[in-house]
Amino acid sequence: MKLAFIGLGVMGFPMAGHLAKAGHSLAVFNRSPEKAIRFVEAYGGVACRSPGEAAHGCDFVMMCVGDDHDVRSVAGQALDELAPGGVVVDHTTASAKVARELAERAAAAGKVFLDAPVSGGQAGAENGALTIMAGGDPGAFARAEPLMRAYARNIRLMGPSGAGQLTKMCNQIAIAGLVQGLAEAQHFARRADLDPTEVYEAISKGAAQSWQMDNRWATMAEGRFDYGFAVDWMRKDLGLVLEEARANGATLSVTALVDQLYADVQKMGGGRWDTSSLVKRLEE
Amino acid sequence: MKLAFIGLGVMGFPMAGHLAKAGHSLAVFNRSPEKAIRFVEAYGGVACRSPGEAAHGCDFVMMCVGDDHDVRSVAGQALDELAPGGVVVDHTTASAKVARELAERAAAAGKVFLDAPVSGGQAGAENGALTIMAGGDPGAFARAEPLMRAYARNIRLMGPSGAGQLTKMCNQIAIAGLVQGLAEAQHFARRADLDPTEVYEAISKGAAQSWQMDNRWATMAEGRFDYGFAVDWMRKDLGLVLEEARANGATLSVTALVDQLYADVQKMGGGRWDTSSLVKRLEE
Repeated sequence: MKLAFIGLGVMGFPMAGHLAKAGHSLAVFNRSPEKAIRFVEAYGGVACRSPGEAAHGCDFVMMCVGDDHDVRSVAGQALDELAPGGVVVDHTTASAKVARELAERAAAAGKVFLDAPVSGGQAGAENGALTIMAGGDPGAFARAEPLMRAYARNIRLMGPSGAGQLTKMCNQIAIAGLVQGLAEAQHFARRADLDPTEVYEAISKGAAQSWQMDNRWATMAEGRFDYGFAVDWMRKDLGLVLEEARANGATLSVTALVDQLYADVQKMGGGRWDTSSLVKRLEE
Repeated sequence: MKLAFIGLGVMGFPMAGHLAKAGHSLAVFNRSPEKAIRFVEAYGGVACRSPGEAAHGCDFVMMCVGDDHDVRSVAGQALDELAPGGVVVDHTTASAKVARELAERAAAAGKVFLDAPVSGGQAGAENGALTIMAGGDPGAFARAEPLMRAYARNIRLMGPSGAGQLTKMCNQIAIAGLVQGLAEAQHFARRADLDPTEVYEAISKGAAQSWQMDNRWATMAEGRFDYGFAVDWMRKDLGLVLEEARANGATLSVTALVDQLYADVQKMGGGRWDTSSLVKRLEE
């Protein structure tokens, strides 16, 4: 079985590393070649000069790139070079539309494209504990699933092509309202002269509890935002959400508002800050 | 030590019951007298005809009534009749303003008023597992705390009079954005033809996790809203929040929006539905 991994960023590098540690020799490609060289130094395999070269003759190509444009370009090249019957597993968070388009194109060539965005962040990628929400052909999913086990714990086929992306969008919608609610709660607490740590102890065990509260309240109170899931990435994801909602008729008033609030954070120079920096916007 | 409990609603009845089970004989009052009679039949003690009669000569009066107006009236009568040095512990969710006002009035009479709103809902009251966020005199709090242990697990003095109410407001702010985010996520999932149960399994273990998601996603998907924390109560609480924010300068754009969305639910006839009925508003 021949494997490639394309896109060795903060997510892709550790994900590909887990595949290598599981015993696979990988052909890798990254836009800035130093990372591919660094990967091969650490894990072996072959650093390639293009997505097509990496994908050439492969049974599976995993990829984790930036946006719809990158997905279309990279997956297009990979599909051309893949072995007959080969599978592209795309871990990028992108649109459901590009997933459907590439799945169709793959099928016409006797190959398969699966959309398989992840959640769990950099820590999840490093610990091999990601969640994967996939869409596409069930048979190809069943064949790819054991490979994804190298870096993911919760792997689900959600439906036809695009269903993985749509599920990831549900995740981001839930987070958008939640994080702004949390930011407003902490902002109010400060205005009310309450001790944020005491407030956390009082409200974090009940109906207001959330992963975000358990993992971000303290850093928000300290004003630390130089880590985590960046505002620029969240805006990209919310853009996908709002475009999809325009098509499927969902009304997302809070999500649309929070997207605008994140635009304020970008204007503050906070594009690389963690999403919890919404509280900093309130404090300015 | 002489004790009274005023207000035997869905919260007060089981709270007072825990005090009785802990060995205290209570003087009780409730606006509709049947509940007081039912309480005495179940737990002993004395059913009284007025808040003042219940509070007469008491060292501690616990109360759990409806709103600022009720608090002012009931606590006023209780403070008049309380034993010298006695303490009124108010478990109502009310304004910080009324708490400060009554604390001042109590102090002038050599007595104490503590604001001590609760979270944990009816189940928390029945299981004796409430959270209490208190504001006011530390000495009186220390004396009242062992009594509150009968029905609460997490009991905190948050600061001076009003600080308990302000902390409860933080709780409701966090919940407002969170629940609407959850409603939008589920609404989007349906529009995207995803299976809500599968979506829950995919997104509930990571950064979108919340108590609300763990406890309300399934009932939202089933369209069950005939239980839980009612929209009418949430609107009352958000009214307190927005009034306080107008005074302290906090900007709560999502909280203010969600308050308006709850007004829509009330217009749909959903004043008594659980707060998670925001999703029903989106589906109409």
